[in-house]
Amino acid sequence: MHVAMPLYEKFTALDVVGPYTALAFAPGWKVTFVAGQRGPVTDDQGTLTLMATASYEEVPEPDLIVVPGGPGTVPAMNDKALTDWIARTHRHTRWTTSVCSGAFVLAAAGVLGGRRATSHWGWVEHLKGLGAEPVNERVVFDGKVVTAAGVSSGIDMALALLAMESGDRTAQAVQLAIEYDPKPPFDMTTLGGLKEEALKLIDGGF
Amino acid sequence: MHVAMPLYEKFTALDVVGPYTALAFAPGWKVTFVAGQRGPVTDDQGTLTLMATASYEEVPEPDLIVVPGGPGTVPAMNDKALTDWIARTHRHTRWTTSVCSGAFVLAAAGVLGGRRATSHWGWVEHLKGLGAEPVNERVVFDGKVVTAAGVSSGIDMALALLAMESGDRTAQAVQLAIEYDPKPPFDMTTLGGLKEEALKLIDGGF
Repeated sequence: MHVAMPLYEKFTALDVVGPYTALAFAPGWKVTFVAGQRGPVTDDQGTLTLMATASYEEVPEPDLIVVPGGPGTVPAMNDKALTDWIARTHRHTRWTTSVCSGAFVLAAAGVLGGRRATSHWGWVEHLKGLGAEPVNERVVFDGKVVTAAGVSSGIDMALALLAMESGDRTAQAVQLAIEYDPKPPFDMTTLGGLKEEALKLIDGGF
Repeated sequence: MHVAMPLYEKFTALDVVGPYTALAFAPGWKVTFVAGQRGPVTDDQGTLTLMATASYEEVPEPDLIVVPGGPGTVPAMNDKALTDWIARTHRHTRWTTSVCSGAFVLAAAGVLGGRRATSHWGWVEHLKGLGAEPVNERVVFDGKVVTAAGVSSGIDMALALLAMESGDRTAQAVQLAIEYDPKPPFDMTTLGGLKEEALKLIDGGF
């Protein structure tokens, strides 16, 4: 299974590396980071730089794409090279997916029209304006289009995709290998009062 | 708060980027990736390359260090430039930490002697041979030395450190910002029978 993950300036690192690590650990799965051209791409904090090892043209028919989110989302939505690549690859993919505000890039590429989709809780409702049906779930499957909620949710999505493609046993072995037995220090259902503060930390770019 | 994360060949990407994303989102926190020299460092899959933006010499007194794990652990334990840097920085750090088999690099640097520490479930018991007291917990505090279990556990450790240093409110806002409300597809307590299979996927290098 060949996975392509497009990188764009000001992506959020965990959106990319969460699903990357889960997928790349599975036998027979390979991930390639792509961009307009090969070379370094820097994240939303300006402190993490990942290398794109292929241009969009060099990866025309991946089996699966994962589009990350981040403060660079709006420029990414207007990056025709990126959205054209998504639209083209989507014709052939087994799965077309996003994490966080990456859903808006999928929408800009014409992939989300009429589909159920999710995104970060801070912006998921805005998907309506782009013709999608916003859903407040952690991972949303609509046909071959799969969207995950904010940042860390890409790990859950990746394990779900592994289970679909390679079977529960492989997904379970990967979950065990990466010791994904999370113990968040706080109960998210109690944090609603901090939404404004949280949105100051994560800039969706909207 | 200045965080330094050393990179070495064949590190596991999520060991690094999980805590990175959580810490770097917090106001006043900055993360620098360091290595023997500035430049690209490639992960355990050979498909993800992160840039080290400073040499060890350029970051002599970070407040916090996070040492990742991965199949490159044994060469890292024998990399005197790295272990000397850990030993030197440890004299000044507020927190000296590791994720996964990164605990063995801390041990090689002389940081873990007599301390309670954890690591990936596959190798945690081997810490005994290096003078530490192995503990099967997700995040273990022993004074200013903090060790996290396998791969994904660095996220939990980072949020715990944020809470200690910047207060619960900041850690909560970050947890909400990165939507860390994990929904692992499988219950880890049921996966014990897959340990051998999982260890084929994750090579601790031991």
